[in-house]
Amino acid sequence: MSRSVPSSSLLRSFPRAVRGQLLAEGVLPLNAPILVAFSGGADSTALALSLHRLGLPFMLAHLNHGLRPEAAAESAPEGPVRTFAAQLGVACHIEHEDVAAMAASRGLGLEEAGRLARYAFLERTRAAQGCAWIALGHQADDLIEDMLLRLVRGTGWPALAGMRACDPSRHLVRPLLQIPRADIEAFLNAAGQSWLHDASNDTNAFRRNRLRHGVLPTLLDENPSFHQAALALWAQAREDERFWEAFLAPTLACVCQTQAGLALPEAALRPLPRAARLRLYAELLRRMARRFGSGQARASTLFNLDRALLRQERPKRFQFPGGVVACLADGRLELTSPPAPAGTQNASEP
Amino acid sequence: MSRSVPSSSLLRSFPRAVRGQLLAEGVLPLNAPILVAFSGGADSTALALSLHRLGLPFMLAHLNHGLRPEAAAESAPEGPVRTFAAQLGVACHIEHEDVAAMAASRGLGLEEAGRLARYAFLERTRAAQGCAWIALGHQADDLIEDMLLRLVRGTGWPALAGMRACDPSRHLVRPLLQIPRADIEAFLNAAGQSWLHDASNDTNAFRRNRLRHGVLPTLLDENPSFHQAALALWAQAREDERFWEAFLAPTLACVCQTQAGLALPEAALRPLPRAARLRLYAELLRRMARRFGSGQARASTLFNLDRALLRQERPKRFQFPGGVVACLADGRLELTSPPAPAGTQNASEP
Repeated sequence: MSRSVPSSSLLRSFPRAVRGQLLAEGVLPLNAPILVAFSGGADSTALALSLHRLGLPFMLAHLNHGLRPEAAAESAPEGPVRTFAAQLGVACHIEHEDVAAMAASRGLGLEEAGRLARYAFLERTRAAQGCAWIALGHQADDLIEDMLLRLVRGTGWPALAGMRACDPSRHLVRPLLQIPRADIEAFLNAAGQSWLHDASNDTNAFRRNRLRHGVLPTLLDENPSFHQAALALWAQAREDERFWEAFLAPTLACVCQTQAGLALPEAALRPLPRAARLRLYAELLRRMARRFGSGQARASTLFNLDRALLRQERPKRFQFPGGVVACLADGRLELTSPPAPAGTQNASEP
Repeated sequence: MSRSVPSSSLLRSFPRAVRGQLLAEGVLPLNAPILVAFSGGADSTALALSLHRLGLPFMLAHLNHGLRPEAAAESAPEGPVRTFAAQLGVACHIEHEDVAAMAASRGLGLEEAGRLARYAFLERTRAAQGCAWIALGHQADDLIEDMLLRLVRGTGWPALAGMRACDPSRHLVRPLLQIPRADIEAFLNAAGQSWLHDASNDTNAFRRNRLRHGVLPTLLDENPSFHQAALALWAQAREDERFWEAFLAPTLACVCQTQAGLALPEAALRPLPRAARLRLYAELLRRMARRFGSGQARASTLFNLDRALLRQERPKRFQFPGGVVACLADGRLELTSPPAPAGTQNASEP
């Protein structure tokens, strides 16, 4: 989407791009309303407005994290969140969660606690309202920040290239993921639609913001088409994911669920090329993360695990984020997790 | 290699790490001396000193680019370059090239012209002196900068993860690639060995330096183990390269050389998974780059090429860096290049 598009044409082309993305991801045709994760910021406002203009059924879900002084007023009965919902003629489900207290009680950072609370609220609301999908406002700038975050953390390929546009297992879809922030604001300006400004995006208290303000501008200075470059990389990662999914399907069919995790015979691992084994470990850990809410694995630990497999060192244990343990023993690889506290599921993606 | 290692132990462990790398890459045992690309900076000084301490046969090759006022004195008969060679008791081959004039006459940037002149000089000297390998001083910080440069440019995976440790087809080996700059300086300090400071590394006139000074410190602030994370990513890319090389070998066997380039029947392409086809295009372009000195392809152009293949649009042409053209017509994909000016070969890597 070009920034030189006149506003009248943007009012049509922007929702059309959103519909194109929903079609490509298999979200359309709908058999139930979409639940829009609505913060009131530019991204989710543009997403809701697009669905409204496309005539698609949807409702809003808004979580007050209790972190900003102005948040209570935003979600109050006469506040901007409910006013926007009324303007579009859609339902709006609002809840309040004391994220700071949750972070303190569970020993989490504020960002992480907010993310967990938000996804739990969204899934709860989706199920209760009978919605088919949760639509998230993540856009191309978020995607690039996500890539940088993953690069910093040492995430391997293809996960390195950032969040997915669609995750049917979690009912998540991100229809704006290929649209830069500037285009979203241009659409809202063309529509004469205001949005809420979240001041916490401006501070450098969070790593995401530090990368947004400290790194991204330099990359964009060096390559004004950096959005396009990053999106091509992201698209390549999606192709690779498809490839490895098909390539590993016969091996993954040998995985058995145990009470505390997953297990796989070593004999199924050994014939694979090393690149495939490294992927397989990552996929097993992703499955553990989905079941137990553990975090992303570092590539270096996967290499160490593979080295131990070849070296016949038994028994051998490896620790992964979220308390997951991989153990090589008795002719099989077993991944186990400590019992997860309630509400920590689905913690593997932003 | 840890930074807390005492200096006496570093004097042994550092050369040992260099030897380990040379063994891993199949460079040892040697049947001819190594040619060290010697700038006089910390990296190539540490490399030469390590080979000296390992008792391996080597000689130095030094190119005066004519860009810095102090360069002539550095390579003069009593200057530090020849003095260092004499101290180690090895031959030193010195040439002068007017890189600024070369850049102007060929319409290149100074960095690019310097790189072309340097690699041409090294290969010429290697062949003339009967050396088996050219050893380059690139280290882990260079590798990370290379990753960022490739990220900015939109390079696809696995090339995204940076330069190779070894390229037998070009007789290149980079034994320091997994060692951070700080460890190299610690080794030199422990050895009481001084090195030349290249002031052009401090300016922000070059993109590499801007990323080094403007982006890398932030990434290291966010993750003090970022070197390790980046090296794991790089190792994963090398595994993927091996995997794709084996996976694509049967298809690459169908490639035929034409006078102006390469050609491949469409029938050999169509049965491949899309991820494999995208790799195959990248490999064909890499072969063209090696033959004709063209540059790295953008991932987005490869996607467009693949879309055209599936859509049966014929004839269809795509432009790649360095004037390479990919053409879909007559049931085959053909890559052609305009005649290359002399001395532009091997321009695809730093």
